[in-house]
Amino acid sequence: MSAETTPRGVGRRRLLFGGAAAGLGAVAAAGGHLAGSRGFGQGSTELERAGLDEAGSNGRQTVPFYGRHQAGIATPPGAYAAFVALDLREGIGRDRIRSWLRMLSDDAAALTQGEPALADTEPELARNPARLTVTFGFGPGLLAAAAPEKAPAWLAPLPAFGVDRLEDRWSGGDLALQLCADDPMTLAHAQRMLLKDSRAFAVVRWVQPGFRRAYGTEKAGTTMRNHFGQVDGSANALPGSPEFDRVVWGDSEIPAWLEGGTSMVIRRIAMNLDTWDELDRRGREESVGRKLDNGAPLTGESERDEPDFDAVTGLGFKVIPDYAHMRRARPDDPRQRIFRRGYNYDAAPEPGGGVSNAGLIFVAFQADVTRQFVPIQQRLDKLDLLNEWTTPIGSAVFAVPPGAAEGGFVGEGLFS
Amino acid sequence: MSAETTPRGVGRRRLLFGGAAAGLGAVAAAGGHLAGSRGFGQGSTELERAGLDEAGSNGRQTVPFYGRHQAGIATPPGAYAAFVALDLREGIGRDRIRSWLRMLSDDAAALTQGEPALADTEPELARNPARLTVTFGFGPGLLAAAAPEKAPAWLAPLPAFGVDRLEDRWSGGDLALQLCADDPMTLAHAQRMLLKDSRAFAVVRWVQPGFRRAYGTEKAGTTMRNHFGQVDGSANALPGSPEFDRVVWGDSEIPAWLEGGTSMVIRRIAMNLDTWDELDRRGREESVGRKLDNGAPLTGESERDEPDFDAVTGLGFKVIPDYAHMRRARPDDPRQRIFRRGYNYDAAPEPGGGVSNAGLIFVAFQADVTRQFVPIQQRLDKLDLLNEWTTPIGSAVFAVPPGAAEGGFVGEGLFS
Repeated sequence: MSAETTPRGVGRRRLLFGGAAAGLGAVAAAGGHLAGSRGFGQGSTELERAGLDEAGSNGRQTVPFYGRHQAGIATPPGAYAAFVALDLREGIGRDRIRSWLRMLSDDAAALTQGEPALADTEPELARNPARLTVTFGFGPGLLAAAAPEKAPAWLAPLPAFGVDRLEDRWSGGDLALQLCADDPMTLAHAQRMLLKDSRAFAVVRWVQPGFRRAYGTEKAGTTMRNHFGQVDGSANALPGSPEFDRVVWGDSEIPAWLEGGTSMVIRRIAMNLDTWDELDRRGREESVGRKLDNGAPLTGESERDEPDFDAVTGLGFKVIPDYAHMRRARPDDPRQRIFRRGYNYDAAPEPGGGVSNAGLIFVAFQADVTRQFVPIQQRLDKLDLLNEWTTPIGSAVFAVPPGAAEGGFVGEGLFS
Repeated sequence: MSAETTPRGVGRRRLLFGGAAAGLGAVAAAGGHLAGSRGFGQGSTELERAGLDEAGSNGRQTVPFYGRHQAGIATPPGAYAAFVALDLREGIGRDRIRSWLRMLSDDAAALTQGEPALADTEPELARNPARLTVTFGFGPGLLAAAAPEKAPAWLAPLPAFGVDRLEDRWSGGDLALQLCADDPMTLAHAQRMLLKDSRAFAVVRWVQPGFRRAYGTEKAGTTMRNHFGQVDGSANALPGSPEFDRVVWGDSEIPAWLEGGTSMVIRRIAMNLDTWDELDRRGREESVGRKLDNGAPLTGESERDEPDFDAVTGLGFKVIPDYAHMRRARPDDPRQRIFRRGYNYDAAPEPGGGVSNAGLIFVAFQADVTRQFVPIQQRLDKLDLLNEWTTPIGSAVFAVPPGAAEGGFVGEGLFS
């Protein structure tokens, strides 16, 4: 049979389990390729096969764009992200910013629901939203140009930390767009549409692509791992819980235009995997205070167990050492909490460099940067064993407005 | 309820459909977040929900490493790829190359089956192979150092084409590794393990990450689209078919060590999306000869229809124009065929550049580069409307040895 006549779009599950005798014949004629080469051999039980998404179901999943909060914060993170920062062009003032935000909001509202953007030149690439979200953040420059009197006090570069080796090419920005989706082509298309419609208003300052586990790789809801192999983010509050609401949306002293909004800190953390490799497994676990295998605290059995910071070994040493990241990151003051929603990055090694150029795009949401984020980072700056292998090379702070009402646009509150 | 005690690993399907009353209660207590924010609202039918892979089934899928042919050629492409080229260090000769290939083969054999590599420092990152494949290609430099008398005549840089604007940073290489998987973290970890074990033997020349649609975004087997929105690769022979075997593995004049092997051409094709945007939809369809909507030839109704190159419009013009890519790419000589297995790339825009830096990692497998690939490319070089918007900026040719027998290594035939 020829390639031209083979029904390649036929779902594999139907071929394997369903009627379609002709389909099964086709597979046999083609040398069992479909069944064989997808690796239904070793390690795959019938149950696992039955769980596969052959219909592209995930591609049609959508996250609402309009609502009290912007999507992409409480939303379970999509597998891929692009963090994009733009700088306003010379002379773009309040009215033009308003037009720009209106246009980008309309684009995001359409794209996230699987509809083409304004004057979308490749509408076919918009068909599978795959849980696309677009989250807007406003940098100090945007506030200064649009509504300087409305800038919250914490909207400024973070204080300098001793561990920082910040590079301009990963820092700052007037507008941030956080795009997340379970599909990289969906993400690339959405990014281009938003940047195309930004051309008259702004220039790209930086783009940071990131990833987590792909949809279907692990059980839904599994905490991500970073390049060190560590389970990363176990202590996060559960979106929707009162704790989450307090940490992220806040409960006091919020300017009216930011009610339902929050702040976003984006830090690019380079991870030196070459020297990390020289550390033995016990040393790695002690540097964080968690077991590598399942992310449990060194004093516990499973990931969500409360750590026992007082526990000591037979020799009298603390089980979770003083310098462990987990101990340093955890505040005594319950108000000093943040919500982490980061992504791994893996860039090409620099010419003549080692064999990796990888790290973490550390993304934290919190109602107040100064009160919640800064004290944690100051503690880590002073003493955190992980500092040995990690270097912050980028940093940016953004105000994240609330979500738009149907027909409105993100940031509307700046203009009223 | 606190974040620490919530069973986040519980499959969503069980929460939605299955017993687990406690689970359902937890969702309600958390403000309906799980159900709500994954977007089970608009556009999602119950059937679609039921098709979701919540168990991580795809993460456990494996593709056999050992066999007559290397994996990653007839294998349905994973969603992500990394193409890595390495150059031998000074003084690395035949014996050391042999040790290197043995070590990399052992690593690839383990990693593709979900097992840690040799001295794997993050074994947890190897647990979900997600259909990982590793395909080895040998450049002219590796043959020259290991077994110069065995180099096939076609193993050399391609002849120069008028459209080429080749950059050294995307061209050449002594060893190519093609890594494909449905998960980007799996891919990143495998890449690092292989490069770590290569440190004593070679330096990284270039790395090109690429992507297709993610697993679960579209029906299994859907032909990919490129950044122009075009369905790309419709004319490929079906893996496992006699036609595929002839095109890829060949049927004559194959050196013994390459029997069961093939060649791999990797071309990096920049796509100018900014000027492409200025073309209207009809112009775009005529540039290729296919409909954008479903990839059907302009003379047909569906993607696999045979094009009618003689059909004319009422005005007497050819329906598929002379300059259409599809007409130029299709040979009169049936031996001039290739098997395409490329990936899209989307790099960050260059500073001060436009809003995109995207293109295609064009990857073609064929038994003989000179007889199959070169004539097609020469025709396209002379007249192909797509040349207006595409520029080859990288090029490399590799010999792809057959697969290794259990316990052997890829390229063993070079040393016997």
